[in-house]
Amino acid sequence: MTLFLIFDILGTAAFAISGAAFAMQKKMDPFGVLIIGFVTAIGGGTLRDVMIGKEPVTWMTHLPYVYTIIIAVLLAITFRKKIGYLSKSLFLFDTIGLGIFTITGTEIGIQNGLHPIISVSLGMISATFGGVIRDTLCNEIPLIFHKEIYATACIIGGIFYVLLTYFQVRQDVNFLLTISIIIAIRLLAVIFHLKLPTFYN
Amino acid sequence: MTLFLIFDILGTAAFAISGAAFAMQKKMDPFGVLIIGFVTAIGGGTLRDVMIGKEPVTWMTHLPYVYTIIIAVLLAITFRKKIGYLSKSLFLFDTIGLGIFTITGTEIGIQNGLHPIISVSLGMISATFGGVIRDTLCNEIPLIFHKEIYATACIIGGIFYVLLTYFQVRQDVNFLLTISIIIAIRLLAVIFHLKLPTFYN
Amino acid sequence: MTLFLIFDILGTAAFAISGAAFAMQKKMDPFGVLIIGFVTAIGGGTLRDVMIGKEPVTWMTHLPYVYTIIIAVLLAITFRKKIGYLSKSLFLFDTIGLGIFTITGTEIGIQNGLHPIISVSLGMISATFGGVIRDTLCNEIPLIFHKEIYATACIIGGIFYVLLTYFQVRQDVNFLLTISIIIAIRLLAVIFHLKLPTFYN
Repeated sequence: MTLFLIFDILGTAAFAISGAAFAMQKKMDPFGVLIIGFVTAIGGGTLRDVMIGKEPVTWMTHLPYVYTIIIAVLLAITFRKKIGYLSKSLFLFDTIGLGIFTITGTEIGIQNGLHPIISVSLGMISATFGGVIRDTLCNEIPLIFHKEIYATACIIGGIFYVLLTYFQVRQDVNFLLTISIIIAIRLLAVIFHLKLPTFYN
Repeated sequence: MTLFLIFDILGTAAFAISGAAFAMQKKMDPFGVLIIGFVTAIGGGTLRDVMIGKEPVTWMTHLPYVYTIIIAVLLAITFRKKIGYLSKSLFLFDTIGLGIFTITGTEIGIQNGLHPIISVSLGMISATFGGVIRDTLCNEIPLIFHKEIYATACIIGGIFYVLLTYFQVRQDVNFLLTISIIIAIRLLAVIFHLKLPTFYN
Repeated sequence: MTLFLIFDILGTAAFAISGAAFAMQKKMDPFGVLIIGFVTAIGGGTLRDVMIGKEPVTWMTHLPYVYTIIIAVLLAITFRKKIGYLSKSLFLFDTIGLGIFTITGTEIGIQNGLHPIISVSLGMISATFGGVIRDTLCNEIPLIFHKEIYATACIIGGIFYVLLTYFQVRQDVNFLLTISIIIAIRLLAVIFHLKLPTFYN
């Protein structure tokens, strides 16, 4: 599906830029910025591939992702002073990436005959662990563990995708519906400052 | 072996609870608490599986572990104010988990034809790296690198298990002897505040 | 190639010592020192093996590496007060290790039919991620992300190696030329305090 590929590339680029922006905040050198951008974009998918035994992992045999990441990081470095202004578009790309990676991960789980619960987990891991690795390498407690509805959107989206697959909804329809839900949850969460309830006094 | 399965589930639950308790100390949101509980329980086994090429990794094809972890984390959240009082039972479960995971890891190494030294290392990694990943994600230097006899108990237990296997001791006897040794070392270490000698002045 | 094996063992030893020295600075207990030494020496190669699907990973089936690491860590602990004086030899070993691991990683990429860009990345990952994991476990932002020409030397060396392979230069000649280049870049970088240009004001 060409639409899918376009979105996938956009998501990869957005994740790479978000990683690069994070690394620049930490005053890393250009190489560090590139690696953090790279790891943010491919970390979740790499962990997914390694855990299901799909090796060599995807980015090693799909160069367009690698080129996308390199270009995205170079753009992030070049326009580093304008990234602030672009944060809304970035947020949108990041959310699209989140949706796409959730769907690909979940779909790969289903295709590998894994149980629906595991497939949904795999989708969530694919979408969020790039960011977890980014934060860990930058010596921060991963954002998704204490801020905002983020992984929750992936889990709800994944469950939705699995259900629609079960009811044999056409894959492109399923894809568009699921990604819309993930984006909607994430947008609403940010607009209304929704968080998971905490239980600390 | 049913006894084995029961202990394995108990160990998984204890590791999940210890992870969840740690995450709650760090004021993570419920999702973060779940993930840290999950990672603590399955991290060591996942690393073990990935390094020997057993993929999909175990938890992806064995749902009882996943259910156990979810229930354990929910219990930890519900009774979070009483976890302090329960710390002794928790410590016991955690130690049982440590013993079980050491044995499973070592046994898997032997079954895969790995050298005894490697099998013992694999057992130790299976038992301790869930905690290492937990601490790293929570932005702490892993506890086992600077506190208490912990991994040492796994290594001694693993060596013992390999020796008894070599002398063809019945597996259930071997299992019970090895786990008793690991638990005994750990209990003695905590009761008498034993540490590895350090060499810093 | 015997020369290769000797260098590889030397590189492994140097990485193990550098890890152990780092862990001792962090006042870890002897077990922690051993594990950090181990992880520094085999972390990059393990990640490399796992991503391309070469499992069990190399150190699990090649005991000489394991013995080398144990001996190197014991030496590092014994002579811990003299490591300061030895820092020049250590730096040399570390750089040799860097060169060797870059070449092995790149070569394995080529042999697995991966694209040259991916093979060079694989070489760089093999050479540097042991240190990345060491720094992450010790709760530091990885050194290579913000200091000195280090990974850059691996990338240049890897590109050089791929080019010479393409032009069918004899492998031992290629090996010696590439490692000389990596060592030269690293030495010049340290002597002249070269860094990647940064773009922060």
